[in-house]
Formats: sequence, structure tokens, C-alpha cells
Amino acid sequence: MKDIRACLFDVFGTVVDWRTSVSRDLAAFAREKRIDGIDWLQFAVEWRRLYQPSMEEVRSGRRPFTILDVLHRESLEKLVARYGLEGLGEADLEHMNRAWHRLEPWSDAVEGLRRLKTRYIIAPCSNGNIALMVNLAKHAGLPWDCILGAETARAYKPLPQAYLNSCRQLALDPAQVCMVAAHNNDLRAAKAQGLRTAFVARPAEHGPGQTTDLTPDPACVDVSATSFVELAAKLGA
Amino acid sequence: MKDIRACLFDVFGTVVDWRTSVSRDLAAFAREKRIDGIDWLQFAVEWRRLYQPSMEEVRSGRRPFTILDVLHRESLEKLVARYGLEGLGEADLEHMNRAWHRLEPWSDAVEGLRRLKTRYIIAPCSNGNIALMVNLAKHAGLPWDCILGAETARAYKPLPQAYLNSCRQLALDPAQVCMVAAHNNDLRAAKAQGLRTAFVARPAEHGPGQTTDLTPDPACVDVSATSFVELAAKLGA
Repeated sequence: MKDIRACLFDVFGTVVDWRTSVSRDLAAFAREKRIDGIDWLQFAVEWRRLYQPSMEEVRSGRRPFTILDVLHRESLEKLVARYGLEGLGEADLEHMNRAWHRLEPWSDAVEGLRRLKTRYIIAPCSNGNIALMVNLAKHAGLPWDCILGAETARAYKPLPQAYLNSCRQLALDPAQVCMVAAHNNDLRAAKAQGLRTAFVARPAEHGPGQTTDLTPDPACVDVSATSFVELAAKLGA
Repeated sequence: MKDIRACLFDVFGTVVDWRTSVSRDLAAFAREKRIDGIDWLQFAVEWRRLYQPSMEEVRSGRRPFTILDVLHRESLEKLVARYGLEGLGEADLEHMNRAWHRLEPWSDAVEGLRRLKTRYIIAPCSNGNIALMVNLAKHAGLPWDCILGAETARAYKPLPQAYLNSCRQLALDPAQVCMVAAHNNDLRAAKAQGLRTAFVARPAEHGPGQTTDLTPDPACVDVSATSFVELAAKLGA
């Protein structure tokens, strides 16, 4: 790993805890609006379930590139109808959609990123759009050097262009870049394009009883750590 | 200016002193390579003179979008021929071209940016490409929240898309964004697209005897300051 110059990060699930953050954010909003009887944890999980299908429309070429804020908003409107939520205005829906801009980091994330930044270029390579990533960084204190990912690459992971365009935009060879994620499928796709890979387990991403991504897949993972701080130490930062 | 959420910055000349930095960097390289008899200040000025014509090929549509590192490299090769410099290999030319990744900031820039960052999103809106801006930020300690500008906008300033796409990528209206530059023509173009504008004088950018951009043009400048620190104070940061 001695040639590594940059670390790219998956964000949802790897850097931040979307499940707890979105559900708490929506629950607080609902209390304020006196909306009762909704399981907001379930709502957040259903919202996230619409994530991959919405991006698949773009990946397949059936739809031109569309940023995640727009896909999130369309999924939210489906859920609002499904849950029979009435009387929500434009400002309410926009506030709810921006819950994804206000996610909380895992407890080790900021310290680990700060350490990694002393030695490497650090950037998200997320499917989130630039505004989402910038607002999230301001909210959570994520010290990125720049924002890369789907919007700058004009491609959603795990398409090859999402990884390759990010490397090219840093003027680095894929072998000089380490993709960091809590998801083996993300790392498998990055590895296939020549990037180095680091797995950081996030066994609580999907709540109690999580069965996926508890351990790294040795076929596609170069380095494994249980936290960003441990990863920084392993990468000499 | 109370609605401002983000400050976008011109970089070459406004944040960093390209003239002194490029000439010193090349002079140090020349000493190491035992190349004598070149006026590197003049060389840097001639290199910069090729900057606008090279971008004009792209702006006009005669050439597809091409990042600045490539344009700089083509201009460098013209100058190497013009100066009769011989025996430079690929690694030498690449090192020389990367002088633009190693520019020094004006003395007030880093402190001013740090203060502005506490209240605003701060990002370059430069004609430099992402890798150039990231490496420059690492070198000079520029604490950007993200990298915007020509490469993310796919348009060179002063084309409207360079400003408008940068605002859109932050999900902000132009009126929520302040363009900061030492060049009235940059601010004039930003103002025409609805951005707010701040002029910071850099009377030494072009060396002694500079006659341009010594004062703000009141027709296109909302705020004027003599340093980034003063600008931060004027913008309440």
C-alpha cells in the first residue's frame, strides 16, 4: 500500500449512520408538526430501500444522469403517499429530504479522517451529490480535501466510471488510490478497476441482527480495520 | 449580503501569488539541472500570457473541454521551444508543469479563508482543474470545503456556465453566493449571472508597476477589502 496517495470513501453507512440519523431527524420533525403513529425507523429503512432501484434507472441509461437529492425526493414522495401523510407543503418535504444532509458520523470517523488527511488526499466517492456531501461535511465536521463521487464522475457506483473518473480527476492511477467502504460489493467494483481497497466493518449500519458485510471478503479487500482510527494507523497516518 | 451562504474564489492571483511562485519554482529546478541564462520571471509571465488564448480555444467550442493541466503543458512546450531549452525529459516537463500545483498563498489568504469557513461554504471557482486545486490546497494549506470551478462546471470563466453550474452544484441560488476575486472582469461576469461580488485588491500580482485591477469597479462590486481577513470581518465571519 506504499504507493497510495489518496483515500476515497463510501459515505452512507461507512462514514455516517444514516439509519439512526434519518429516523431521529424525521421523528423530531414529526413531533414539531404533531404527526403521530409513524414508525420513523421503518420509514427510513423503506426510504433507503428505494435508493438502489432509483439509481438503477440512471445506471441502465433509461434516464439521464440525475443527482441523488432529486432521486431521494421522488422516493420520499412515494413514501409520503404510501404512509398516507397529508398536509405536507413544499418546505416540509424539502426539510425532510434534507435529512440526508444532516447525518451523524460514526464515533471514530472524524478523528480517523483527520489523521488520514495528514498523509493522504481524502475525498468521498459517494453516490450523494456535491451539495449533499458539502452540507453533510459542514454538519458532521468531515475534513474532506475535495468532493468526488457520482456527480463529478456523472456515474453511480458500482459502475466503473464512478471509480475511474474520480481517480482521473485527482490525476492519479487507480493503484495510487484506496477505496474505503463498509460494503464488500463497493470494494469488489473498485478492485476490478485497479484501486486498492480497505474494509471497515459497520455491524450496526442495518441495526440489530445485521447479517451482511460483517467481515471483509478476502477476494477483494487489501486492508481491513474495525475503525477509521485503526485504518489510519494501518496506513501509517 | 445577509443571504450569502457560500463564497467562491478566484485562485490564480486572488488566493495565490502565481508570478513569484512559478518563477522561483522554475529557477530552483534550473539550478538543480544546471540550466543557466534564463529569466524565469519573464518565463512565468510568458507562460501566463498563453493562458487566456489556450482557454479561448475551449470557450469558443473549437476544442472539446480540456483541463488546465493539459493546456498548461501545451503552453510550456511552446515556451521550451521558444527559449531553446534542450534535453528536458518527460519527468522534467511534468515537474515544471506541476509548478502550478505548488503556488504560495498571499500572506492573509489562509487566515481569512479559515475565518470565512466558520460561517460560509468556501470553494475555489477557478479555471484550474480538480487535481491542480487539490494539490495546491494541500501545499498551501487552503481549507476548502469542496473544489468547484472549470472542471466540475465543464466551462471556463468568464462563461456564464462556470458560475451558474457552481451555484447549482451547491444547490444555492446565485444571490446566495459571493464571488471573490482580484479581477474586475471576473466579478463583472459573476454579477451578470446574479452572484454577489467581493473585490480583494492584489496590487503586486503583476509585479511592480501594475496598472490594472488596483481598485474595484463600483458597477460590479458589492464589497471591497484589502485582504481576506478584512473581507471575513466585513462578511461577519
